[in-house]
Amino acid sequence: MGMTEDETFSELGSEKREAFKEKNKGLIPKSSFTDWYDNVLLEAKIADDRYPVKGFTVYMGWGFSIAKKIIQLLEDKLEKHGHEPMQFPVVIPEDVFQKEAEHIAGFSGEVFWVTHAGENILERRLLLRPTSETAIYPLFKIWIRSHADLPLKMHQTCNVYRYETKATRPLYRGREFLWNEAHTAHADYEDSERQVKEGAEIYSYVYDLLGLGYLLLERPSFDKFAGAVYSIAFDAWNPDGKINQIGTVHQLGQNFSKAFEITFEDREGKQALVYTTCYGMGIGRVLAAIISQHGDDHGLVLPPIIAPKQIVIIPVTYKGHEEAVNKYAKNVLKLLYEAGFRVVLDDSDLRPGEKYYKWEMFGVPLRIEVGPKEVDTKDVTLVRRDSMARSKVSIGELVEAVNRLFHEIYENIKDMSWKRLNELIVYSESLEELKSLMEKRKIGKINWCGDPDCAFKIKDSVVGEIRGSLWNKFEETKGPCIVCGQPAKKVVYVSRTI
Amino acid sequence: MGMTEDETFSELGSEKREAFKEKNKGLIPKSSFTDWYDNVLLEAKIADDRYPVKGFTVYMGWGFSIAKKIIQLLEDKLEKHGHEPMQFPVVIPEDVFQKEAEHIAGFSGEVFWVTHAGENILERRLLLRPTSETAIYPLFKIWIRSHADLPLKMHQTCNVYRYETKATRPLYRGREFLWNEAHTAHADYEDSERQVKEGAEIYSYVYDLLGLGYLLLERPSFDKFAGAVYSIAFDAWNPDGKINQIGTVHQLGQNFSKAFEITFEDREGKQALVYTTCYGMGIGRVLAAIISQHGDDHGLVLPPIIAPKQIVIIPVTYKGHEEAVNKYAKNVLKLLYEAGFRVVLDDSDLRPGEKYYKWEMFGVPLRIEVGPKEVDTKDVTLVRRDSMARSKVSIGELVEAVNRLFHEIYENIKDMSWKRLNELIVYSESLEELKSLMEKRKIGKINWCGDPDCAFKIKDSVVGEIRGSLWNKFEETKGPCIVCGQPAKKVVYVSRTI
Repeated sequence: MGMTEDETFSELGSEKREAFKEKNKGLIPKSSFTDWYDNVLLEAKIADDRYPVKGFTVYMGWGFSIAKKIIQLLEDKLEKHGHEPMQFPVVIPEDVFQKEAEHIAGFSGEVFWVTHAGENILERRLLLRPTSETAIYPLFKIWIRSHADLPLKMHQTCNVYRYETKATRPLYRGREFLWNEAHTAHADYEDSERQVKEGAEIYSYVYDLLGLGYLLLERPSFDKFAGAVYSIAFDAWNPDGKINQIGTVHQLGQNFSKAFEITFEDREGKQALVYTTCYGMGIGRVLAAIISQHGDDHGLVLPPIIAPKQIVIIPVTYKGHEEAVNKYAKNVLKLLYEAGFRVVLDDSDLRPGEKYYKWEMFGVPLRIEVGPKEVDTKDVTLVRRDSMARSKVSIGELVEAVNRLFHEIYENIKDMSWKRLNELIVYSESLEELKSLMEKRKIGKINWCGDPDCAFKIKDSVVGEIRGSLWNKFEETKGPCIVCGQPAKKVVYVSRTI
Repeated sequence: MGMTEDETFSELGSEKREAFKEKNKGLIPKSSFTDWYDNVLLEAKIADDRYPVKGFTVYMGWGFSIAKKIIQLLEDKLEKHGHEPMQFPVVIPEDVFQKEAEHIAGFSGEVFWVTHAGENILERRLLLRPTSETAIYPLFKIWIRSHADLPLKMHQTCNVYRYETKATRPLYRGREFLWNEAHTAHADYEDSERQVKEGAEIYSYVYDLLGLGYLLLERPSFDKFAGAVYSIAFDAWNPDGKINQIGTVHQLGQNFSKAFEITFEDREGKQALVYTTCYGMGIGRVLAAIISQHGDDHGLVLPPIIAPKQIVIIPVTYKGHEEAVNKYAKNVLKLLYEAGFRVVLDDSDLRPGEKYYKWEMFGVPLRIEVGPKEVDTKDVTLVRRDSMARSKVSIGELVEAVNRLFHEIYENIKDMSWKRLNELIVYSESLEELKSLMEKRKIGKINWCGDPDCAFKIKDSVVGEIRGSLWNKFEETKGPCIVCGQPAKKVVYVSRTI
């Protein structure tokens, strides 16, 4: 394999990796997840982490095309629910950032500081937003005057900046990361609670369209967002047994409206503080979840809804048949294009086998093969990317068949993802058992008394930590707290995190 | 008017502005362009420059909705022509930025520096990209190996950062500005020249869809992009007679490929340097051009293709008729929605006149009024935003009528814009005349010998400067150089700039 025994692929320098790949045709198997992931990122043109600043990743063409589709799904849904698209500056003045005490405590250690411009020292230091509450609230304060201005709901897709001290990992954890954040303001707590629910539903809707398997958890209070009343989070499973937090929704109560003095005239003519919420979805992390949950030994497996190309047509021809096959392939292309599919005809000089390899790597949901036989019988051969199952269908039934197969592919990858998540979750009644589960890369499900001390003991004695309890479903405890033996209050999930 | 004689509206503080607007119902007339522009930005929810960092503007809901439509038109066109969407980091290390000598000379005085992260001083200073050549080329160097990798064409929509010393102005000139930039690499100069042409055609296509009037000029060599062989630019007219540069296309030759050592193996197996081009379109500036060229005393006038809402339906009802009118309005809504239009029914509690005011301000291309009369006669009243012309059409012919009116609106605002541009351009044979033209807020057209000294003399003696000669059409000179009297080589355009 060109590696010593205690070397993993990802630890190799880029030159060695190239040499490895040239010697070993094809992709590293997914069972070696970390290496497989690095390999897929470059092979499928998703992302390149050879940018000359650590923790800053380049989105390549195929990767960013998928990201754009995810963003569009999310933005359309947010706007359908009344969130207006906006864009706020990337820099926040130091004094404005420091208005909410818990918030600054949570973030100040990891912000990037802009201190100079040209040859000048800036009068006030500016920081690159690690999240945008403190950028947005000064304007909310200006815009909100009366109850008629509420609720105010906005969203923006942007990059945020955090000087991560943990190991960075392309798409999963970077010092620059692409996300969409929504911010809302409300006249009363009830309405802000309704908004938290709406935020969670919008996110669930998007994740479900992508076929992702995840837990929707309320975080324990010691792990909530800096400045929040409470936080809920979407934790997607990852092949290495870790948890990939792909979205969070926060109830902020009046914590920020107090600090930023965001008041309005209520229906009785009195000044009152608004209630705010915010939620963020990491686009890079969602992309990582799609790659890691659905991908296989051949590369990506994309849900049709976000595949930049949904169908590839490959002519498989023999001498003397080229003209007829190519003409037929073009007709199929036209038919599918006019039916609204994102379709590409690969009439390049590569051999069919090389084309299969390439488009499988890119995760294109359906491959259509046309050869002299198909020209004669007026049909096409369809190959599903998820199961590699082949079928034949006549030209007249092609559009209907594609729609049906897209639906089946989606249902299949979604089912497999949830099945895998459920297999990962194992109920555990002792710290010993939990420890062994973590080593086996599982997600533990335990009874917990609710005391943070017990949570910290878990963190100290096993490599995982408490992620929270199901947000949308109450689970009955089945025994005492796994740590202290006192009556348990909650069933919580324990896992390692990325 | 609540202002002293030598005060303009834009010079007032925000409190005074509010007081002014409350006292003076309605919009400031467009003839007071600067004040009108500031007024429209807030009233039509385009942008808010009260963000607490100078030169950094917030895009509000309606403004960013329009910006998104512009971005989508441009990105779709770029991708249709083979540009892959990518995303590069916002930070560039100092040493990488300094590789191309002219480039660093042109930009170093106006970059923002990131020097600290958390409590740490960064080992290498990072700058916020003022443009992305130096971020992108290190990766181009890795990706490009052989002629088969060429041409390489990418684009990204992002914000760039320039510490402007000139007065900032929302959307026109900010220290953060939203743009789309494309970067390409080619095997030979011929192909890079073809690319310059393609870039210019893509931009023309987009500006034409938006009905904008502009000059497409080759910039004089002293005004080209830092590091370019030559630069061409799209200069849109502005109501104050200044020029709004809405896009540029640059031939970079091998200047950057030399500095970044971007080589490839050519068809003969030899290593050669690539040729590169780049082009950028300022999304904020295009939005400013749409507002300023098409807008009128009632607010925005949007081309239907980018209007976030293309049609507003307003029920005009009387006591006893509410139910029938509202039901009818909903049917009209359904009909238009299903036909694919972006349509909104304003059934709020505002009076019809207030609704007219609001949606005219937002520039929605068509207003549909329905009242008891329309319910009886099964038709609707249509009001065009551009001309305010009214017409009636039966329900059965509505979809067809809307399509026709959209086309007519587009043609009308486009024609008016080009007409206005042509009126602004005045041929001038002397510096005296030119000076007087600039004072009258016109664009001068003069004969020039090509000597930079003569250009600098123009800049010193009139408030305008040479912007360049038509790129896509050779214009015959009609006399000697306006400055030195020597034979002229080029017909060039002179104007003030924003």
